[in-house]
Amino acid sequence: MKRLEKVKGTRDLLPEEMAKRRWVFERIREVFERYNFHEVLTPTFEYTELFKLRSGEEVVEQLYAFDDKGGRNLSLRPDMTSSVARLFVNSFQNAPKPIKWYYMANMFRYEEPQSGRYREFWQAGVELIGSDKVEADAEVIALFVESYLATGLEDFTVNIGDRVLLDEFAKMLGIEDDIGLMRLIDKKDKMSREDFVGALKEFGLSEEGVEKVLALVEIKGLPDEVLPKAEELFTSDEAKAEVARLYELVDLLEAYGVSKWIRIDLGIARGFDYYTSIVFEAIAPNDLGIGSIGGGGRYDNLIEVFGGKPTPATGFAIGIERLIPILEWKGLIPEPKLRPDVYVVPIGKDAEVKRAAVEVVTALREAGVKADYELTGRKLGKALDYAGRLGVPYVVLIGKRDLSEGKVTVRDMDSGEQKAVEREKVVEEILGLLGF
Amino acid sequence: MKRLEKVKGTRDLLPEEMAKRRWVFERIREVFERYNFHEVLTPTFEYTELFKLRSGEEVVEQLYAFDDKGGRNLSLRPDMTSSVARLFVNSFQNAPKPIKWYYMANMFRYEEPQSGRYREFWQAGVELIGSDKVEADAEVIALFVESYLATGLEDFTVNIGDRVLLDEFAKMLGIEDDIGLMRLIDKKDKMSREDFVGALKEFGLSEEGVEKVLALVEIKGLPDEVLPKAEELFTSDEAKAEVARLYELVDLLEAYGVSKWIRIDLGIARGFDYYTSIVFEAIAPNDLGIGSIGGGGRYDNLIEVFGGKPTPATGFAIGIERLIPILEWKGLIPEPKLRPDVYVVPIGKDAEVKRAAVEVVTALREAGVKADYELTGRKLGKALDYAGRLGVPYVVLIGKRDLSEGKVTVRDMDSGEQKAVEREKVVEEILGLLGF
Repeated sequence: MKRLEKVKGTRDLLPEEMAKRRWVFERIREVFERYNFHEVLTPTFEYTELFKLRSGEEVVEQLYAFDDKGGRNLSLRPDMTSSVARLFVNSFQNAPKPIKWYYMANMFRYEEPQSGRYREFWQAGVELIGSDKVEADAEVIALFVESYLATGLEDFTVNIGDRVLLDEFAKMLGIEDDIGLMRLIDKKDKMSREDFVGALKEFGLSEEGVEKVLALVEIKGLPDEVLPKAEELFTSDEAKAEVARLYELVDLLEAYGVSKWIRIDLGIARGFDYYTSIVFEAIAPNDLGIGSIGGGGRYDNLIEVFGGKPTPATGFAIGIERLIPILEWKGLIPEPKLRPDVYVVPIGKDAEVKRAAVEVVTALREAGVKADYELTGRKLGKALDYAGRLGVPYVVLIGKRDLSEGKVTVRDMDSGEQKAVEREKVVEEILGLLGF
Repeated sequence: MKRLEKVKGTRDLLPEEMAKRRWVFERIREVFERYNFHEVLTPTFEYTELFKLRSGEEVVEQLYAFDDKGGRNLSLRPDMTSSVARLFVNSFQNAPKPIKWYYMANMFRYEEPQSGRYREFWQAGVELIGSDKVEADAEVIALFVESYLATGLEDFTVNIGDRVLLDEFAKMLGIEDDIGLMRLIDKKDKMSREDFVGALKEFGLSEEGVEKVLALVEIKGLPDEVLPKAEELFTSDEAKAEVARLYELVDLLEAYGVSKWIRIDLGIARGFDYYTSIVFEAIAPNDLGIGSIGGGGRYDNLIEVFGGKPTPATGFAIGIERLIPILEWKGLIPEPKLRPDVYVVPIGKDAEVKRAAVEVVTALREAGVKADYELTGRKLGKALDYAGRLGVPYVVLIGKRDLSEGKVTVRDMDSGEQKAVEREKVVEEILGLLGF
């Protein structure tokens, strides 16, 4: 008989992990809803063409693509933004703006498994479609910060960069392939300084150009310290307007009460090619080798790329497989309670005893108690062992003799003490013991 | 610019539908947890071989199969049971029994889209592994009934059949290909009586055999009326023991308090080939052309098929795309509230006014109010139109003059009445208006 394993790069999520994930999702969902975002879900697969319309090279290479039985070339979604843009173009172009959507869903990329990276992974994200105002950027970044705070995480920063300024910077260096430069800059934290300099030279930069890039990626820190440097560096009207936008953003984020977590880092490009203005990512210091735990930005051209009327948009995604290990490492996720509060054990095989056991467990469940009962026909001793191993606090024993006197026995598993209780009062007794 | 649509047989779930689905999932989850089942989640795709190990022909034909970039032949899961069996064999053979797992997840089958059938669909299900006792069947069937009840559905029945009895019946007819016969019987409700008779003859049954099958599929109704007929029909020891098991099941289900919903129907086979004893399905009368809304049964050989030690198991799955339309048709799902309770509108472009608007919306959100604010830079009139169209009950207007006096204006959108409120007291005022 062949024994099969799960596919490389995928995981089974067991009860404890699932309960913890649910806790994290619910904390984030609460904040998303409070900000008046609403959940949507698109299909797991779409036409491959859809994902090719806008994704960076890397993402297209990593697609899980296949032909279905009807000859359609489909792909598992590598992220949600393309699908959401498609949905918007299909049905929401004439809806009142802005549209505020969120999603909590799984994505698929064929990449080498590494710390915090899986071939199937989950994201919780939002898209705010239909406003080009900096107020929309601020709303989304404030929500981004508050989402992490809702999980109990406090030691993190949201680093804000800007694609207009990076473009302008590429122009100042006389570089045509600004996307290529951004990709390089984006990878800087994954290389040594030496390798980064080497890569920049190979890309075609002069010594002076390399120096300028190294200076640019050093423009990072608290907004008050960094924005004046940016003001000095850039001279074009467009870049100056963008710096003013960053000032306004920082001002609004202060009103949201989230300044403490905000940094400016002009060396951030974010992998995707479709960002057009403000971009951002969250970093939480950790010993686990995990980099960004989420990111986003403004993508004002994307809806057009998908065949819609030009419509500005901004959004973010939180990487759940990046966030959860950090929360666990910090002990921020409450331990889930997986054991039942009560375990009911019928003694012997008498039909009346079995029925009574079912009636007791049912009455307990109806009263809201997490109750279970012996389903494998184990004898008393083994059933108690099992309950002990699970850490169940109370066991209800149902025996024929007790029952004939209208009673059952409640056992405190900690002390081993047993007490006969009237059958009709056992729910009351248990509720009292559990402190309900 | 190419406009892309979603793939045939898939759907976009919009905010209202998602909120309703969440409501349904949460009602069911509550019951699953109260019965001490714990959530697991396996990968969306597995080796295709895994799904071929046990699924019926039809399911294998309908697999979404593909080669990944590493040359592995993978398939999107067509159901969860194979994956759960794999997980059990991989890691849980030596864990304390029984194992009680549940899942709420999406599945994929390439079949012709029709009412209540999609190529991507969701199931909420449980697997109880490690008990061959009828107590385990009763626990699972009681939970099945209670899951529907938790969604408010009352007009449904759970029809119970038995594969041992069907096997025995095939033997009595002298039929070797009992699986073939079961498949036919399983499809009986989708054919006219005439077509069913024709199919039985084509299958090789004599006139007498056809008569017997027609008699068998008529053995259905309340357990008290039907089980005595089954007792008469079957003569072998094995079949008699199985009828006794059904009697015991019915007795236990009465103790669970769910008898009202239980029927026996010996003509039920359930599509999959792996069931070994009790099988069941739920039917809710409806005008929507929707048949079974869920089903399950005992599969004592399955774990062995996946390379594990022989381990008995039972479980069920609820078809969410079947259930929800019926719940909606009956008006059982509460209308979700998608509008914010408060909409904050800054008047003009003054930075101080904008900041104040953010501060007010943030304070409201911190107090637990679903609050939103004007993010598109609309003028007052248009912003009020927008709030009106959304059905927002209260708008907070923030103007420069008010602000200089430390005030903001609260507008009741129903009456159109406006009232100046001290800025510091606006949260209190709104909480009062909302009846918090």
